[in-house]
Parts: sequence; C-alpha cells; structure tokens
Amino acid sequence: MVPQMIKDSLHACKSLEILTQTNTMTTNIKFLIEGEEEVGSPNLGKFVAGHKELLKADVILISDSSMLSMENPSLDTGVRGLSYIEVEVTAANRDLHSGTYGGAVANPITILAKMIASCHDENNHITIPGFYDDVAVAGPEERALINKAPYDEKEYKDDLGVSELWGEKGYTTYERTGIRPTIEINGIWGGYQGEGAKTVLPSKATAKISARLVPNQSSHKMTEKLLNYFKSIAPSSVTIKAFEHHGGEPYMTPIDSKGYKAAAKAVETTFGKQPIPVRGGGSIPICSILERELGIKIIFMGFGLDNDNLHSPNEKYNIENYYKGIETIPYFHKYFAE
Amino acid sequence: MVPQMIKDSLHACKSLEILTQTNTMTTNIKFLIEGEEEVGSPNLGKFVAGHKELLKADVILISDSSMLSMENPSLDTGVRGLSYIEVEVTAANRDLHSGTYGGAVANPITILAKMIASCHDENNHITIPGFYDDVAVAGPEERALINKAPYDEKEYKDDLGVSELWGEKGYTTYERTGIRPTIEINGIWGGYQGEGAKTVLPSKATAKISARLVPNQSSHKMTEKLLNYFKSIAPSSVTIKAFEHHGGEPYMTPIDSKGYKAAAKAVETTFGKQPIPVRGGGSIPICSILERELGIKIIFMGFGLDNDNLHSPNEKYNIENYYKGIETIPYFHKYFAE
Repeated sequence: MVPQMIKDSLHACKSLEILTQTNTMTTNIKFLIEGEEEVGSPNLGKFVAGHKELLKADVILISDSSMLSMENPSLDTGVRGLSYIEVEVTAANRDLHSGTYGGAVANPITILAKMIASCHDENNHITIPGFYDDVAVAGPEERALINKAPYDEKEYKDDLGVSELWGEKGYTTYERTGIRPTIEINGIWGGYQGEGAKTVLPSKATAKISARLVPNQSSHKMTEKLLNYFKSIAPSSVTIKAFEHHGGEPYMTPIDSKGYKAAAKAVETTFGKQPIPVRGGGSIPICSILERELGIKIIFMGFGLDNDNLHSPNEKYNIENYYKGIETIPYFHKYFAE
Repeated sequence: MVPQMIKDSLHACKSLEILTQTNTMTTNIKFLIEGEEEVGSPNLGKFVAGHKELLKADVILISDSSMLSMENPSLDTGVRGLSYIEVEVTAANRDLHSGTYGGAVANPITILAKMIASCHDENNHITIPGFYDDVAVAGPEERALINKAPYDEKEYKDDLGVSELWGEKGYTTYERTGIRPTIEINGIWGGYQGEGAKTVLPSKATAKISARLVPNQSSHKMTEKLLNYFKSIAPSSVTIKAFEHHGGEPYMTPIDSKGYKAAAKAVETTFGKQPIPVRGGGSIPICSILERELGIKIIFMGFGLDNDNLHSPNEKYNIENYYKGIETIPYFHKYFAE
C-alpha cells in the first residue's frame, strides 16, 4: 500500500525531527522504505537477505496497518498471508456469433462462473480440497478476545451500504477477517462490455482470484492448490491457463514482547486508552521474510482507519490521524528504550 | 448484421443491373435497407406499421442468413428469437480492500458467478423456471430432416479449435443451434482487469445475458422471466439492477410456399444441388414484425458461411460467395414470376 507506506515515513520522519529537536532521542533508527508492497515485494526480500548486518536492529516498526477507530485504538497482532492467481478460460479459437454457435460450443464465461461458484458451499465455507488443512484453529480464548473488540453491526453495514453481511457461517465479522482464510474474486472480464448489446459468444473469460491465508497456511502450498483446483475442474470443452501473480506468508507477533508492550503503552499515553489487540485482515508479504532473515519481531503501529477507502477511489487519510501518529511514535521509542 | 445487410444490397443491386441489362426483369422490386438490425430494429418496426401500402409485395427476400457450405447449399427455414438483458450486482457502496473486508462482505463477482452458474444443470439443460414452457417440440420427422444435413464433427471442432463440444444433453449440434432455446453470457466485467494484481473486493459486477428463442416462445414473456429470475435469486447481501436491451420473436417460413420453392429451384440451378432446409440459429427481429404488419411470408436466401467470423474480429465474405449470390438471385425472380 504505497500511500500508507508514505504515511509511515511521514510519521517516522516527523517524529524523528521532534525527537532530535527536543533532544529526547533514545534509540537509533534505520529507515527501510518499501515501494513494491502491492506487488509482493519481489526485490526487497533479496535486499534484506543480502544486507543482514546493515539491517541489524532490536525491533521493526511497521505502520502499514490501521486502527478500529480513534475512540477505540487498536494494534494489529498479525497480518494474513496471500496467494494470488489468474485463471483464463478459452473455449473456441475466436469470438463466435451467439446465434450460429450458441448452445453447441462452450461459453467460457459460463464455465468460469461455474468454476468460481464451486469455490464456496451454501454456508460460504470454501470447498477447495485441503484448503483448511493447515489452518491454526483459534481457541475459545482467542475468539473471545477478538469479539471483545467494539463492533456495531448496524454502523458497519451502514458504512458499506449493505443490508446484510456475507461470510462463513459460524464466525463473527472480526473472526471472518482475522482468523479465517478467504477467497475473493478481485476481477473478471470476458466478451462484450460496452454500451448496448452484442450477441457474441466470446472466446475467452478471465478472472483474478486471491486467497487470504492465516497461520499456519503456506502461501506457496496454497497457490499450488488453487492452480491445481482450477485446472482440475475445467471441463474438456475449454482449455485453461492459470498462473501465479504473487503471494506472501501470514505473520503473527506476540503481545507479550517488549516491542508490543512499548507500542501499547505509547498508544495509551496519547489516546488515553489501552489499545485492543486485533488480527489484521490484509497482507504484508515482507513481514515473514524480515523475521526469517533478520530474526527480529515486527510491531504494527498504524494510524489509518478501515474506512479510509483503501484500494478504492478517493482513498483518504485524516489529518487528525496523521498528527496522532506523530505524537504517538516518539513514545514508542521512549518506552522501548526504557 | 450490418455487413451482411450490405452484402444483401450488393447482391440485389448487382442482380437487378443484370436483369435490366438483359431485359429479363420479370418482377417489380422494392428495397428496404435496415441499419439497426443489431440493436433490435427499434425504428423499422414503426416505419413498416406506418407504410403498409408502400411496402405491399408478394414475397420478402432477406439475405441476412448463411449456407452450410458451397458444396452443401442450404436455405434457412427460420430464425431464433432473442431476449437480451443486463444484470448488475452491487455489494458494498465502494470498492473495498480485500484483506480488510474479504470474507465479511459479499463479493459481487462471486454472487454473479453463482447466479450465472445456476442457469444450467449438469446436462446443460436450462433451469430457469418455465424456460421451456412454450417451446414447440420438434417431432421425429423434423429432427431426422435436421440431422440429414451434412455434418462432420471433427471438421466442426477443428474449425473452432476445441477438443470437445458443449451443449444440451440429448440433442445434436444442429438441433442445439436450431430447434432448442439457449442462454449465453455475452459479456461480464467487474473489479480489476489490468496488468498484474490488485487486492480489491469490488463494489459491482455486471453481465450481458441473452436467450435465443424458438417457436412458440415469446420474447416479451421470456425477457420478463429472465429479469424476474435474476432478481429473485439475488441474495440479500447484494442489490440488483436488471433491465432489457432488446428482443425479437422467432420466425418460421413454410417450405411448401411458392417463394421457398422458387428459392430452392434458383439455388439448384446455380449450385447444381437441391438446397438443404435448415433452421438458422441467429435472430432477425424484423421478420415477425414484417409478417404481422404486412401479412407477407419471408424467404431467407443468404450466401455467407458460418465461418465468416460473424461478430468476431476479421469478419470476412468470400468473393466466390458474392458472385454466386449475384448469379442465383435473378433465378429466384424468374422462377417466382413463373
């Protein structure tokens, strides 16, 4: 998320300026700016692996996360992993007249729709074989903690303009976005998409499909499963191309670490409230690489809000949140040094 | 089909020139040029209704049809009708981050895919309630006649580049495109369609959906059925907009009429072979209007081929077919006058 990476840098730079000016700088800081987060950090991983000495540190602070609200500050305790693939279904070798050939030759949109429809059962449980195999099942305690976070379903629905939510049966909204893996169709296209009507039986239909993963799912294994699934269910009336875009592993940070405690205390200092630990729904592929290569735990300390329209038109970031971040981060350094 | 309408005019004009030059003009000819066939002829119908005297004739010749092949000339005995709708599914009021909200809010692509998938059962039989209610079931004799037309499945598949055909169980290819109604998804779109990946949970997904109809299905009734079907199966986690683009009634012409016999004799004269009567798979909405308003039967006499890439890139029309049409049509006038 480039805009949030920028926010991150802004917070950190501004905080650093204040620390320097007030002579209260208690820690050394190394900046690592990431510009490829949205494409799976294909180069940063290599850089990190090759510069372990340069990047040595006691803790890593990432602000590419958000809070429940200004009234209910929270700290993410992890991010979901990601597998992202593209599936292209080809029927005839060219677009056809839907009258001349309709009913006798496969329609790739119909076939792709059937393939997509087969991913969820009537309880919105994912039906891809082995999909849930490695999921670390959250215990009653963790589920209770997740559901203690303030949640107003009416407000949540009103904000999104929906009259009913959708999700895996048996789980609450925060459980669905936090501890459960999901499959989303991020894009689809095929045939005529212009004004009016065209009676075409298209040659191709394509979809971008991603899964959000939770501990202990492996992005690599899951990508293989997704690719194999779509290839295996394609009927012989079509041919299929399926390939990976990118992926990332899920990542969890302990809430009893020195870093998390310092972050929680910093938030409490400036917000006047203990932050709620929550599982983030998004993915930051570099997290698991940083921990693997450098052996350092990551602390998520972001000041955005879920309704900032991330990945949507008119993405925003409130000035109030920006200043609150500048105010809070120096305390993290202070408490961490103590 | 604008290009074929032009072919039609070219045939007729060139034929007329020959008839005039050779002083063998045996009939009077009125030309009616249609430029809105692909959008359902919204204005021609009104013109026909308002100019019955001007349009008085003994027979109507339309060349907006095709032949099986140059070796196996054929004459269409009818066209399928059409219902064409658009369905738009909206979930949240804006695009969402698929990590933050994925799994908790409906994905309109997933929902639309489920709706599309529900239209056909495992035998590719259409499951929309009442869809087959008014279908005039073809008897064994008509089915035998349809299947007497030369058909090489290997050649058919090779031309389309498919290893297996697709269609309603229990019917042959020509039956599927001739005597059976169908549903095709003509276009679909939603979410991110560009290069690479974007982890978006889209707000909307849309499809263009059409049905080819056979006697005695009514386009108006079927459009209502389609619209109601998609509205009724939409879950309450989404809102749906569904509207009609255009439609047209199926049309059949008798093969024992003076017009059909004259056309068959003309084809036999220039091709050296009796034409095979076949049911056209496409739709020409003005046909049923012409017969209703003017009380005149229509004869289909087209010289294109199914592999002319209609409604596809690189649409073509062989010069050989063009000359054959010019040669054949004057005989129609001659035999019809006799």
